[in-house]
This record gives sequence, C-alpha cells and structure tokens, in this order.
Amino acid sequence: MNFMNDTIAAISTPTGLGAISIVRLSGDNAIEAVMEHFKGTDLNQVPTHTINYGHICDADEVIDEVMVTIMRAPKTYTKEDIVEINCHGGPYVTQKVLSTILGSKVRMAEPGEFTKRAFLNGRIDLTEAEAVMDLINSKTTLQENAAVEMVDGAFSRMIKDLREQMIQVIANAEVNIDYPEYDEEELTRQKMQKTTESVLNQLQEVIDYSEHGQVLKSGIKTAIIGAPNVGKSSLLNMLYRGNRAIVTSIPGTTRDTLEEEITIGQLVLDLIDTAGIHHTDDLIEKLGIEKSHQMITRADLVLLVLDGSRQLSAEEVQLINDTKDKQRIVIINKTDLPQKIDLSQTNLAQEEILKISALNGIGFKELKEQIESMFLAGIENSNGEVLLANARQLGLLNKTQEALQSVLTGLADDVPLDLVLIDFNEAWKSLGEIIGENAPDELVNELFSRFCLGK
Amino acid sequence: MNFMNDTIAAISTPTGLGAISIVRLSGDNAIEAVMEHFKGTDLNQVPTHTINYGHICDADEVIDEVMVTIMRAPKTYTKEDIVEINCHGGPYVTQKVLSTILGSKVRMAEPGEFTKRAFLNGRIDLTEAEAVMDLINSKTTLQENAAVEMVDGAFSRMIKDLREQMIQVIANAEVNIDYPEYDEEELTRQKMQKTTESVLNQLQEVIDYSEHGQVLKSGIKTAIIGAPNVGKSSLLNMLYRGNRAIVTSIPGTTRDTLEEEITIGQLVLDLIDTAGIHHTDDLIEKLGIEKSHQMITRADLVLLVLDGSRQLSAEEVQLINDTKDKQRIVIINKTDLPQKIDLSQTNLAQEEILKISALNGIGFKELKEQIESMFLAGIENSNGEVLLANARQLGLLNKTQEALQSVLTGLADDVPLDLVLIDFNEAWKSLGEIIGENAPDELVNELFSRFCLGK
Repeated sequence: MNFMNDTIAAISTPTGLGAISIVRLSGDNAIEAVMEHFKGTDLNQVPTHTINYGHICDADEVIDEVMVTIMRAPKTYTKEDIVEINCHGGPYVTQKVLSTILGSKVRMAEPGEFTKRAFLNGRIDLTEAEAVMDLINSKTTLQENAAVEMVDGAFSRMIKDLREQMIQVIANAEVNIDYPEYDEEELTRQKMQKTTESVLNQLQEVIDYSEHGQVLKSGIKTAIIGAPNVGKSSLLNMLYRGNRAIVTSIPGTTRDTLEEEITIGQLVLDLIDTAGIHHTDDLIEKLGIEKSHQMITRADLVLLVLDGSRQLSAEEVQLINDTKDKQRIVIINKTDLPQKIDLSQTNLAQEEILKISALNGIGFKELKEQIESMFLAGIENSNGEVLLANARQLGLLNKTQEALQSVLTGLADDVPLDLVLIDFNEAWKSLGEIIGENAPDELVNELFSRFCLGK
Repeated sequence: MNFMNDTIAAISTPTGLGAISIVRLSGDNAIEAVMEHFKGTDLNQVPTHTINYGHICDADEVIDEVMVTIMRAPKTYTKEDIVEINCHGGPYVTQKVLSTILGSKVRMAEPGEFTKRAFLNGRIDLTEAEAVMDLINSKTTLQENAAVEMVDGAFSRMIKDLREQMIQVIANAEVNIDYPEYDEEELTRQKMQKTTESVLNQLQEVIDYSEHGQVLKSGIKTAIIGAPNVGKSSLLNMLYRGNRAIVTSIPGTTRDTLEEEITIGQLVLDLIDTAGIHHTDDLIEKLGIEKSHQMITRADLVLLVLDGSRQLSAEEVQLINDTKDKQRIVIINKTDLPQKIDLSQTNLAQEEILKISALNGIGFKELKEQIESMFLAGIENSNGEVLLANARQLGLLNKTQEALQSVLTGLADDVPLDLVLIDFNEAWKSLGEIIGENAPDELVNELFSRFCLGK
C-alpha cells in the first residue's frame, strides 16, 4: 500500500542523454533524505525557493556534482516540501542519484503521483490536472493553447461559476422545503427555472465546441482515397514536405509516428493506412472497394483524390457518392496536365473541390486553409478562449444537461419542489465531478496512472 | 560568427516526454531577455540562486506556467548570468518556450557552448570539461567513478602539481642562463634531473593505468569464437540474461545497442559481430577461418568456446594456438553432459580455462569475476582514485614523456643548459595543453562540438 504521507521521488526529466536531469522529491522527509547524501550547504538552513551547489554522495563515494532546489510547503507544486536535484544529464548517473536517495525515508513515486498530490492537497482541480498531461502531449499551437488555458483554470472557473449560481438556488429551495410556511416557493421555482435555462445555455456552448474540438485534441483521422495512379502518394509526399521540418524538429517523439501523423498548420492529421499508399499506389485494385469503405467509415476527414487528366470512372463516381455525408475535400490532381475531367455528372459543390498539382507542390496552402476552415471554425468561445472538454468531462457535461432538462420538465409539470430539487442537486453534483469534487478513488487513480513518471 | 559575449539559450534536458524540461540561458542579457516574456515576480529584483513562479508569455498568449531559476555571475556554471526556465516537460511546449525567448538579445547555443564558456571563463579546465561529457555518457559504476573524479579535478590537480614542480626548475635554469656569473648551473642541472625523473615516474603510472583503462572507458571489444554448435549463442544468451535488467532499465539509451553492448559487473563488453552468432551458429563454417581471425585481431578479449562433450578438432587446436597472445578465456561449455574433451595436447594454463553450462546458466558468476580480474587489476592509483586519461590526454602525456627523456639524455651528455631547457619547456607546455592552457582554438572548438546541445 502506498500512502499519501510517504515521501516520494522520481526522475522528472525525459530519459536519454542531456545536459541536465532532475530527480524530484516531495513529502515531509524530502529535505532530510537529501541531506543524508548531500555534501554542501546545510539544506535545513537555506531559505525556501533557493538553488544550492553541492555533491550527492553515497557514503564516501561522490555520485555527482549537483544543484539542489529547496521549495518548502505550502507554496509548491504538491503543497508539500519539494526538493529538485539537478544532476549531470546522463541516464546512468541520474539513475544512480535516484537510487542513492531512495531508501527507508523515500519511496519511488508512481506515475503522476506528484500531480495527484497537487490535486488531493487542493492546489489544482481535476480539469487542471488533466490539462497538465494534455500540455505535455501537445503537438500544435492549438492543442498547446487549449491545454494552457485549462492548466490556468479557465475551464474550471467557468464550472465553478455555474455551480455558484446553482448553489444559491439550492439554498433557497431547501429553505422553502424546510419552512413551507414562508411560502416563497413560487419565487424559488421561477428562480430555479431561470438559472437552469441559463446554465443549460452555457453548457450547450461548451458541449458544442468540445464535441467539435475532440478531433483537434486527438488528431483528425484522415483517409486519402482514390483510384490507382491518381497521385495519392504524391499528395502524401506533399503533405510531408510542407511539414516534415516541424515534425522532425522534435526528435524522439515522432520516430514511430512520422508515417502516420502530420501537423498541418494548427491541426494534427492522423493518416489512416498510409502504409498502403507508400508501398503500392493501387490500393483499391489490391484490397478492393471494401477497404476504402472501411477507411471512409473511420475517417473524420476524407481526401478523395481524382486525376484531372482523365475522365471519371464509374468507381470514382461511386466514391464521390459514398463520401457525400463526410467532411471531405475532393482533390483534382495533375492540374499541370491537359484537363479532361468532367464533374457535371456529380452533385459536388464548388467549395468541396480543390485543384492541385501534388507533384509540383501547387495547392498545398489552399488545402491547408480548407482543412483549417473546416475544423477550426467556432472552437473559440465568446471570450476568445479555446476550452475543449475531454471525453470524461464531456460525459459529465452531458449528464448534467440531462438532469437539468428533467428539472425543466419537472417545473413545467408542477412536480413538487423537493422532487425537482433531486435532479437539480444531481446536476450540481455532476458538474462538481468534472473538477474532481467527490471524484471516486478509482477514477482518480486511473486518471493519474496515465501520467508520465516524475510528473 | 558567434561571439563569446552573446547571450545563448538551449533546451538542456533530454528530448522526449517528461514532467519537466529546462530551457537554459547564459550571458549578460539572460535575465532581461526572460523578463520580456515573463509574467510574475520582477526577476531583476529577486536574490541570486532563487527559483520563481510565473508564466512565459508571447505578447498576450500564455505559453507555459514555469519556475524560473536566477543565478547571477560569477557563481554559476559558466561564470555568467544563468537563467533556467523549468517548463512542463512536453517537447512541443518546451520548444515553444525556447523559440519565444530567442530573439535579438539571445541566440541558440551551439552544442557544448555552456561548458565551453565554463572553460574559457576559467571555471573548469579541459580535463574537467571532457569529464563532464564522459559522465553523461557513462554506463557503469566504474566509468561514472572515473568521470566524477575527473569532473572533480583530481586529474588536473595532479597535472598542476607536476607543473608546479617543473616551473621552479625552469625559473632556476633561466636565472643561470641569464646570469652565468652566479655559476650555480651544476646545482640546477642536478635539480632538473631529479625533478625530471620524479615527473617521469608519476607520468608512467598515469600512462600505464590509462592505457590499460582506455578499454574500460570505451568498452572491451569482445569476440565470442568457436566451432559450430559449441554453444556460442547460448553463452551470448547467458550474458544477456545476467544483465539485460541493467541494460534496459535505462530506456532510450540502449535500444540501438542492446545487441552489441552489455554491461557485466563494472565493465562494458562490446560484442563483436554478435549478429553472426544470433542468426547462425555456424559462423566458422559459413565465413571461414579468416573471419574468426579478423575478430581475434580486433578483440581486447577473446571468449573461445569449446564443447566439453566432444573431442577437440584440429581447427579448435588451431584457434587455441591463434589466441595465445590475446587476453582470453577458454570456455569449456556443456559441463552438464559427459565430458570427452582432452586439453593435454594444448599448453593451456589452468587459470585460462573456465567450465560452464551456458544452457543452465552455470558459471556466469565465475566468468564475470574472471573478466573483472583481467581488466580491473591495477586501475586505481595509490590514492585509490581511478584516473583514466582519454586519448587526447594520453597523446600529450606521451609527448611530455618523450621531451623529458630528451632532457635526461641531454643532461647526461652535458648538453648546454639552454638547449636542455628547450625540451624541459616543451614538456611543461605539453602538460599544460592537457588542462587546456594555450590550447589551440580548433582543438577547443572540435572538442566542445562533440558535447550535447544544452550542456
């Protein structure tokens, strides 16, 4: 069993070769445990929030020359005493500093345990904690903005504000129920209705742009489809060319995903089954039309590539028809060749069509803009904030919405106030769960276990 | 052109996902440049060596919530003002903090430039700078110990001590040459001889254990050879089994080298051509005896595997003979089977032979001990320090040694003092180059360019 009052330690920097690595400790014994292996200033005597030179030693053996930051509770990440040991950045030496510190007074931290303590000790709420992880994982400006605003508490401030409005109604209603002789019930019912409608409106706004925005957080699942030899792999290369610099400028993160994920402007496209495109340009020929359909079904965005220098085939007309309910862009490729394509037999709207020459890189900017206009519209709220609720939060927002709708029905049907209040309380509780109030232990444990070690 | 008085910045933690990343700045503009993008305390007003909470912003946009460490010159790594921005550890957000800070006042640091400044500003000498890199790259306790002692200056203290003795002789000799009328030349010649012999002795000791120790720093090139089906691949698996936990417990560092490099106790073995062993157990059959000879020639250590349950073949007798001048261990494998091998026809000494059962993991401990006793003997000096000069330093030690030998010859042959002094000065200069005195720019640039970024 791991207890909250244990002192914990972990390597908090990414693993690998680097100039500096940080071993972080949090808990009552943090300073004392480091002092046992530290030669330098007396860390018990230094002021809080200072960085101090010295050596970490194991008995007489010097392990590393270090800088030790002392941050005393409560003004720290976890609201506990925190010590950060900045060591020389090699993985071996960092590991050795950590294992020297671990012992009877300090145990290894679990993944996310520092942030979990920040939450359990009330420094941040659950939406802020979740945003910390999103921030670490962010790959675009948009994701980063959304995460920073979440970390900064904009979302939880909104939730708290809504709950503040609701708690006043709850207080009123309870007075009416307990002291019916005062007979202000009608007033309370009116107030409850007004508040419920107002909260519902605000929730609807968040739900709308969050549902819309889920795709921005997780990446837009994109299918590049088309007949053989229309230039799907040239299009893919064009997408990579425009972005490879960005993707690979962050080594270590994209090695495994380079083939599957590209950033385009502020968006991340998750390309479905690019292997097929890379290795053969005759995907449809080889795998049949069902394969394309599978890809279309999974996709948030379909890029349907046609060859402008050829006439449409029956299969292509079929593909155009099959994708008509999808977010899609119909790309007429090979504009550098004499054009023979005739789209009059299709019902394509002009704004769905984009002409490019993938081979010459012509049309990339327009493609990017078209994708951005499809996915970025309306994701900022009226304050210019990008508040994207995650799946957990969205689920609770929907639950809240349902409860509030019952409240409205109840009020309209003249259901007794004490029964209506049950739904209203339910809504208030669901909103609270978003920011982690009364969040069940399992949820909290599960959530933080997805964090990286040392966070 | 990059100038020393520029303010520089780089990400100093390893790249990848982690809880904390550090963007480090050094130079006169460091604090000012961060202040331009920092919302929080006035960093100009905070005491040195403090860590301060705030946000890095680009105009109105919040980039990240950060802790900023202020370390004012001269008590810093570079002896310049240093600012370290601890940000949330994601690669995207860290990169963005860095690019926000870079600008007219701050440029991107070159690899090793922080440590280069520490050297050029006189905080550390060249041996200490080189040791910083060794420490980051260290993979075993031994390498780490050696590097820490180097970082700590034990080696450079010894060099400086030798030079101190020599400079007194030089001063004496110069007086004699400039004022021959004092006629103390004989005394000076005696003193010079005595000092030269003493320095030579001490140098010899360092050279001996450094040459011996090179292999410890770079890894012991190990060839596993033997006839088909004697169990080379079982031996390899046994070596991996005993160590894989250590090797893979440091993720990110060994992925590419797992097959080639293993740590065994305090040592690192670089296994030559293990691919051949993995993919086929009949290396000799397939590639012929020359291949084995190539491996033997390249190896620091030969593990020659024989099958105890079979009689020696002519080829195996040949292999025993071919490796007799090498550091080797003749391994009799398959001790679990009835033994038929007869070594009486060979001249093998008992201590060269080790009996194991690779399949059952029997004999691993003994193998480890035997390798350690071969390579670890005599690498500590009389102070119990492990001072391993690197190739550059060894070259200069040898150069010093040659010059000092000329001094002895000159003194014995009654060569005039001013001519002998030329060699003596040369020796003094070479020793100086080891710690970086008058080190040529190209050397310094080349050396630091091998550092990682942000160090």
